[in-house]
Amino acid sequence: MKLLEEKIRKEGNVKEGNVLKVDAFLNHQMDVELFHEMGLEWKRLFEGKNINKILTIEASGIGIACVAAEVFHVPVVFAKKTASINLDGEMYTSKVESFTKKKVFDIIVSKKFLGPDDHILIIDDFLANGCAVMGLIDLINESGATLEGVGIAIEKGFQNGGKLIRERGIQLESLAIVESMDAATGEITFRN
Amino acid sequence: MKLLEEKIRKEGNVKEGNVLKVDAFLNHQMDVELFHEMGLEWKRLFEGKNINKILTIEASGIGIACVAAEVFHVPVVFAKKTASINLDGEMYTSKVESFTKKKVFDIIVSKKFLGPDDHILIIDDFLANGCAVMGLIDLINESGATLEGVGIAIEKGFQNGGKLIRERGIQLESLAIVESMDAATGEITFRN
Repeated sequence: MKLLEEKIRKEGNVKEGNVLKVDAFLNHQMDVELFHEMGLEWKRLFEGKNINKILTIEASGIGIACVAAEVFHVPVVFAKKTASINLDGEMYTSKVESFTKKKVFDIIVSKKFLGPDDHILIIDDFLANGCAVMGLIDLINESGATLEGVGIAIEKGFQNGGKLIRERGIQLESLAIVESMDAATGEITFRN
Repeated sequence: MKLLEEKIRKEGNVKEGNVLKVDAFLNHQMDVELFHEMGLEWKRLFEGKNINKILTIEASGIGIACVAAEVFHVPVVFAKKTASINLDGEMYTSKVESFTKKKVFDIIVSKKFLGPDDHILIIDDFLANGCAVMGLIDLINESGATLEGVGIAIEKGFQNGGKLIRERGIQLESLAIVESMDAATGEITFRN
């Protein structure tokens, strides 16, 4: 998606350690008009899919998911990150390892909001090693819901999350795929 | 706002300890079409105010803030909750005590995204003792930005947050104010 690539080139910052800072428009300050355009693009890319709910993960996925959900006319459910789970049987749970925070946390979704009748589109801001998406897929599988696809804003194409998801036959639509980036020059190359 | 009050009556649950569960539509599963109506209502209530940015706090404020921001045609900035702050001078910081989690955490906003030229509307899902909003006001004051008002989805009118904010002369618009609620009968009374 050209608009997103241009925004990344203009306002993104490449840092050491394969970090791409996009906090000016994506995950700290949030450009909701860009999010709306992203929602329209996912709507086009997932045309024909029977989607009745969007699933995301707190915190930075929530804004993008909610604006996109307006385009799809469906509700959003967000998985909560938690250090200690109340294992009372009312929650689906999985584990996610954070790439940036280097720690493992539990994610939970109430059983009330995910079930066999649901057809789910996962939306998230970043895809790197795929741990967050895999955790969300675990929750979907546990609930008996159907995964219809995964929509990502920015995929780090040089990490293996995208490959893992596509190999499972899942429709993955990343609106910008960073093939390589250079902290010294600030240069970013996108996959065509 | 009648629509929100009806939704709370229909899908909300009163629990012991003054807990109002609205996770079916507000802060776990999220009804984005309701959020859009809430955005329109705040737009009407804050008519004439010069607002160029919405400030909220993770996680459950983000969805409401983003959908409302589309109505206002402004970006959103969300304050991040963090246990340990990187005090490198690039962040505004404050402290918030959580009513439901009974603990104190730091909140941060990058100095890049809040400054003297900004005219801020704070948006959040709940107002109880007002700690979260007070923390956000601290960040705004520290930055030199102007606070134009506070928009809340559900105010617990029997706690003192609303009073504290209104006493400071701040325009506070809560779309539903719960005057009292009863966990035994499930009855909820709204302020007129």
